[in-house]
Order: sequence, then C-alpha cells, then structure tokens
Amino acid sequence: MTIANAKATLPEIDGDRLSAALERAARIGRWRAPGVQRLALSDADRRMRDAYCAWCRDCGLRVTVDRVGNIFARREGTQELAPVIVGSHLDTQVAGGRYDGALGVLTGLEIVRWLDDQGAVTRRPIEVVSWSNEEGARFRPSMLGSAAFTGALALEDALAATDDEGKTFGSELQRIGYAGSGPVPGAPPAAYFELHIEQGDVLDQRGIDLGLVTSAYPARGMTISLRGQTGHAGATPMRRRRDALTGAAEIIAAIDGLAAAGGEPARATTTRLDTWPNRTGIIPGQATLTVDYRHEKADALEHMARELDQLVKRVCTRRKLDVRYQDPWEFGSGLEFDPQLASVVRGEAARLGVRTIDMPSAAGHDAYWLATIAPTLILFVPCVAGITHNENEQIEFDRVLRGANVLATSVFEVASR
Amino acid sequence: MTIANAKATLPEIDGDRLSAALERAARIGRWRAPGVQRLALSDADRRMRDAYCAWCRDCGLRVTVDRVGNIFARREGTQELAPVIVGSHLDTQVAGGRYDGALGVLTGLEIVRWLDDQGAVTRRPIEVVSWSNEEGARFRPSMLGSAAFTGALALEDALAATDDEGKTFGSELQRIGYAGSGPVPGAPPAAYFELHIEQGDVLDQRGIDLGLVTSAYPARGMTISLRGQTGHAGATPMRRRRDALTGAAEIIAAIDGLAAAGGEPARATTTRLDTWPNRTGIIPGQATLTVDYRHEKADALEHMARELDQLVKRVCTRRKLDVRYQDPWEFGSGLEFDPQLASVVRGEAARLGVRTIDMPSAAGHDAYWLATIAPTLILFVPCVAGITHNENEQIEFDRVLRGANVLATSVFEVASR
Repeated sequence: MTIANAKATLPEIDGDRLSAALERAARIGRWRAPGVQRLALSDADRRMRDAYCAWCRDCGLRVTVDRVGNIFARREGTQELAPVIVGSHLDTQVAGGRYDGALGVLTGLEIVRWLDDQGAVTRRPIEVVSWSNEEGARFRPSMLGSAAFTGALALEDALAATDDEGKTFGSELQRIGYAGSGPVPGAPPAAYFELHIEQGDVLDQRGIDLGLVTSAYPARGMTISLRGQTGHAGATPMRRRRDALTGAAEIIAAIDGLAAAGGEPARATTTRLDTWPNRTGIIPGQATLTVDYRHEKADALEHMARELDQLVKRVCTRRKLDVRYQDPWEFGSGLEFDPQLASVVRGEAARLGVRTIDMPSAAGHDAYWLATIAPTLILFVPCVAGITHNENEQIEFDRVLRGANVLATSVFEVASR
Repeated sequence: MTIANAKATLPEIDGDRLSAALERAARIGRWRAPGVQRLALSDADRRMRDAYCAWCRDCGLRVTVDRVGNIFARREGTQELAPVIVGSHLDTQVAGGRYDGALGVLTGLEIVRWLDDQGAVTRRPIEVVSWSNEEGARFRPSMLGSAAFTGALALEDALAATDDEGKTFGSELQRIGYAGSGPVPGAPPAAYFELHIEQGDVLDQRGIDLGLVTSAYPARGMTISLRGQTGHAGATPMRRRRDALTGAAEIIAAIDGLAAAGGEPARATTTRLDTWPNRTGIIPGQATLTVDYRHEKADALEHMARELDQLVKRVCTRRKLDVRYQDPWEFGSGLEFDPQLASVVRGEAARLGVRTIDMPSAAGHDAYWLATIAPTLILFVPCVAGITHNENEQIEFDRVLRGANVLATSVFEVASR
C-alpha cells in the first residue's frame, strides 16, 4: 500500500497501552507519590532499564547498548539505511515526575507496537532510544549520553564523570550491567524525534496540544568557588571577616535579580550551594555555587554573563574573597531544528486536526545534541501548570495523546521516505 | 610555710614543659599544619583523651570520667573540701587551632606539675578538667559537657544529641570508651578557673597580656527552615518560582547587615546552610540556615532578634516560602563572673608585674555554665591578630606564659584558702 493510503487507514495509537506503560514505569523508583526518583545509574535506573529492555524484546525489537549505556531498540526497515530514531530518557531528577523523559521513550515504544499492530513496514529502520543521564542530577554534564553519542563529549570524559560520592559514571555503568559495546560516538541517524512535556506553561495556558520546538534558549552555567577564611562566629569582629557564605548569598540574590532585569524570557538560578566547614560556631571559609542562566536571545544572555561577572567581582573585592570559575558549560546556542521535519509534523497535525504552535525550548534536551549531527525535531506536549522537576508533575493524558498520534504518523512518514 | 611565704619563693611554671605538652597535643589530629581537627568523640578525640589521661596518671593524679565524658584529674588537698577546678576542653573545630581549649587544659596540668615540683600542698583538692564537646562542631549544643555537668542540660538530652550522620553522643561516647560513671550533674566546685585564648584581637592590638572576663556577650541562635517548591531551572519562569535557596540568600545577606547596623559589638553569622535537593538543573525546594547572633548589650540583642524576625517574614512572604524556626539556643545572658576571684587574679598579676584589663567575652566558654553553680573566672591570653577557629591560630608563647603564671599562683592561693 502507499504511504498516503496507509496513513488514511491507520487507527490511532493505543492510549490505554501507552498509559499502562507510563503507570508501570512510574512504579519503578516511586518517591513521594505520584513522584519518581530514578537517578542515573542508580538501582532504580537499573530496574527501569531491565524492565524497559524486556518490554522492547517482547515486541521483537533488537536491543543494543552502547559504551555510555544508551539503549537502542531497533525495528528493521525494508532497507539497510540510517534509522529514524525516536526517544528521550528514563532517568529522573531527585524530585522527579513520571513524564519528564519517560513519556518520550514509551511513546516511541508505543509507536513500534502500533506499527506492528497494523503490520506496517517502513523503508528505514526505526530505533527507540533511551539516552543515559539526561538530567545531570547525579553525573555532570547533563545530557551526557547524547553528548557522547554525537561526539560533543569524549568517551573517556563521559566515563570519568563522578557523582558527589566520587563514584565514576564508568564504574556505575559496569555495576548496573549497562556498559555496552555499541560505538561511541554513534552513526548519525536519518532523523531524530523527541516528544517531551513542555516543562513550561505556555501550551497549558493557551490550550494548545502540540508545540514544535523551532529554537532553543542559549543556556550557560558554571560553578563559582569562593574562598575566605574561617573564624569564630562570636569573637571575630565583622570588619575582620572573610565570610564565604555571606559573599555567596549576595551573589545568589543578585543572580536572581539578573533574570528579573532581563525580562520574562530570562532565567537565572543557583541550583547548588556547598559550604565548608558548614558547622555551628564557625564562619564559613568556602562556598561553591552552581549557576545556570538562560535567555531566548543570545545578546541578552551575553549581557547577563557580563553582569554576572561584574557582580561576582564586586562582592569578592568587598568581602576579600578569592574566586575561581570552574566547569563552564553552554548549550542551545545557535541551535537549529529541522524545518523539513517540522513541515512533516505540521502536515500530520493538520490532517489529524491538532493545533500547533512554534516555540522555543528553555530546557535542555538530548535532541540539542542530536541536532548537531542529524535532522532533529522536538515535539512539546502540555504539562499541567508547567510544574516539573517536582514530584507533582502532571499531564492531561488526552491532550498528550493527540501529540503522540502526530508523532506516530510523522515517524511513519519519515521512515517510509 | 605560709601561703605568702610559699608564693614569694615559688619559681615560675615550666614554660618548656607546657610548650612541649602543647606540641605533643597538636600532633594528635594534626590537620593542615599547624592546624588540628579533633571533633568531639572522633578517633582523634579518643587518642587525645587517651594521651591526656596517661599524662595525668603519670603525675599521680586520680582520673575519673563522668557520664558525659568530662575528664577530671584530681590532686588531693589536705582536707576533704570542694575542689578548685581549672581547665577547658580538648576537642576542636573542623578547622581548629592548637590552642583553643587545649591551652587551658594543659596549663591546668602544668600547674599541678609545678605544685608537685615545689612539694606544695593545698587545703582544697585541685582538679584539672577537660569538658566534652565544647565546640559543638559535631554535636549540638556546644558546651555540652559543662551544660550537663551544671544541670543546664538533662543527661538524657546530652546523650541523645546526634551528629550529621545520625550517630548519638551516647553511642559515640561508648565507642571511644569514655562513657564514665561520674555523676551528672556533678557537685559544684569551690571555684572554677578557665584560661583561654581571647579569640579576638583586643589584647594583641593593645599589647596587654591578660584579660579578666567580667561579662559575656548574650548570644542567641536557631535554625530557620525554608520550604518552597522544586522546579526546572531553565523552564520555570521567574514569576512562578518558590526558590528556597534564593530566599535563604536574601536572609543570609540581611543577617550580616544586622550586625553592621548594630555597631561594632554586634556579631551575626550564618554558620551553616543546607539546601535540598542541591542538584544541577533543579530549583532548590528547601534551605535550612543556622544562625548565630550576639551583642554586648542585651537590649541591642533584643532589637536584633526583632529585626531578624521581620526580615525573615518579609522574604518568605515575597517568595512564597513556608518558614519554621527550630532548636533555639541562648547563652551568656545576665552572666556574672566572680569579683573575688577577679580580685585574687588582679593581685597576683600586680605582684608578677603583668598588666591586665577587664573585658567581655564574645565567645561562649564552658565557664559560662560553671558560673551558674560556682564562683568562676575566665582569663584571656592574647592570640595573634585574633585569628581562631582557623588552622592558622597562633600565640606568642612568652605573652601567654605570663598569664599562665598568674593563673598558677591564683589557683594556689584559692586552693589554699
């Protein structure tokens, strides 16, 4: 049958089956229900991976794991061509929701099952991917698996990443049995699709069910280490102090102010603060901040960078603190998503009667790295009130299902080309 | 011989022997030389206690340990009277110096050796004490051993105090072998003397070798727990945030400002900050501050308390954070040291040609608790530039020795009465 014919006759994907898969996944690493905590390469992550691989094999997919633990589940095409990859990640934040990541992977699996149900064949193989350590909640950088796959991060650097306890990514990957043999970097796919909850409230507020991500917020960050001098909290006069925590506090408050000054699209966050010795009776001698700032416009981000640098200098000079910047990162800058894939998705959405808007993404996604080696598109579906990285993350399933159907027929279309 | 005769003929204490004892103690738990780290009831604390008890027994002292691990080394008097106690503590801060505490204990031991050298006898027994957990760096409250000894802290509360790993004071005391059988609370002594480095720079700057502590800064503190909401650091608009760390930062900066507003004698410090989840990519949902503020004048302290309360309310209202105050503490309020002991010390200092000043203490000391049950006096000796709770804490030994000699003859005088 022709593709046009095939699509016209294809039923919708099985919402109950997708919903059940999401529910089963949410039981793995359940934490502060309805929340989930599946930190990368933790025991919960292993259980999730084991269950997911079993589900994939039950569908007759060939499962392979690469050297950084990315899992690929392959449905063959009629020809030996570069595959269409669809997926996301199964790890979560410490205070994670059940949809951030898992929705994209399990929708990919549902698309395969749906194609199987119809006995549909595609010219290109379709691979459902689950990337390792997207969140970066345990190992930095975030999006580690996709960064390594696309060659943006060297394999040895990925394996050497350490968690707060000093355990390496490589050793933990071995421990949970997911140090695979697939090549890293991997071969570029023909196309990459990622379905993800928006993690903002634009779709929810506007009542639109599908967002096409056409641009990304450039985002930057680093750690800033301040070094002062310990002293007695009671006996040391204020004028003699070199209090690293108070210096850090002034910087943290000003970082929040940076975003306010930058207008609505600006975001600036201190995500971590570690102080030393962090004991009663003693003035903190060291403080290390982890900073994350983003803006829709590159020049505005650049302005924030300069402001941040100046305010750190100001505080450290006044408080006599030594300062060191470490581990700078940047993503989303100058990123382009594929207009042809967007055009396919818009066409399918129109055919299925699903309204779409184009929008930027303020969050980082594995698709950012994939976009550097292959035609890539992110599809946003709404999450309630934009609440995410929080155990109360929720979706309206019927709205999400519309976007998932658009993705399904789009993947079928592109894989059939 | 009469006391007056005896004192006239007594030589000075043995500076070399005291210096050697300080040096030996500084090797136990050595850390960032010349620093020391002997957290209460740690292995280093045990090694220090073991060595110290051996030194005491070598001098023929009877060593007893009470139920909270305070160590008393007794030199008998000619009569069964309440003893004169002299001492301080052997535990240190995380970033500790070699004199904070150890100087007072080892000077006590040197005084006993010096009396032995002369074959001097006293009417009252003399006990050298080492109090448990003065610093509070591991177990809160600080001055735990002396608070329990004087009945200010119930024995069961002392034993139930937990460190950051959840280990109890009682179990750790058992582990290191210092859960003694001496009664807690203990019997009030006839007098208590504590020699301590000033931990400020007044004596050092003014070139005076001995300070008599005639009053204490009232000091207060508590933990303040802020609860907001986690969220995505990139995707969550600033207006939707309930960022506990940024709220904490504003409070920390304002706490520092409180002291500036209170003038030179005011001190205000955030000694600890613990945030959760403290991971990259996520807005902190919880932050807990440990606050410590002091002022020479009680009404000024009361004013600081009101300001602190208002600023916390202001920040939490604006940032939509829930707030909870916990573990309030207070010491030094309305404290009086003994004018008669001060008069003895002033007399001895004059006789030995040592200039003294009266001064308040901004730091807490075990003597604060002893002052509630017995005539008590703290003698301050200078430390270089007032640097303390820091590995670079230093003394000019010759200056300190002058104060130690004044203490020696004062103890002899009072114990002979």
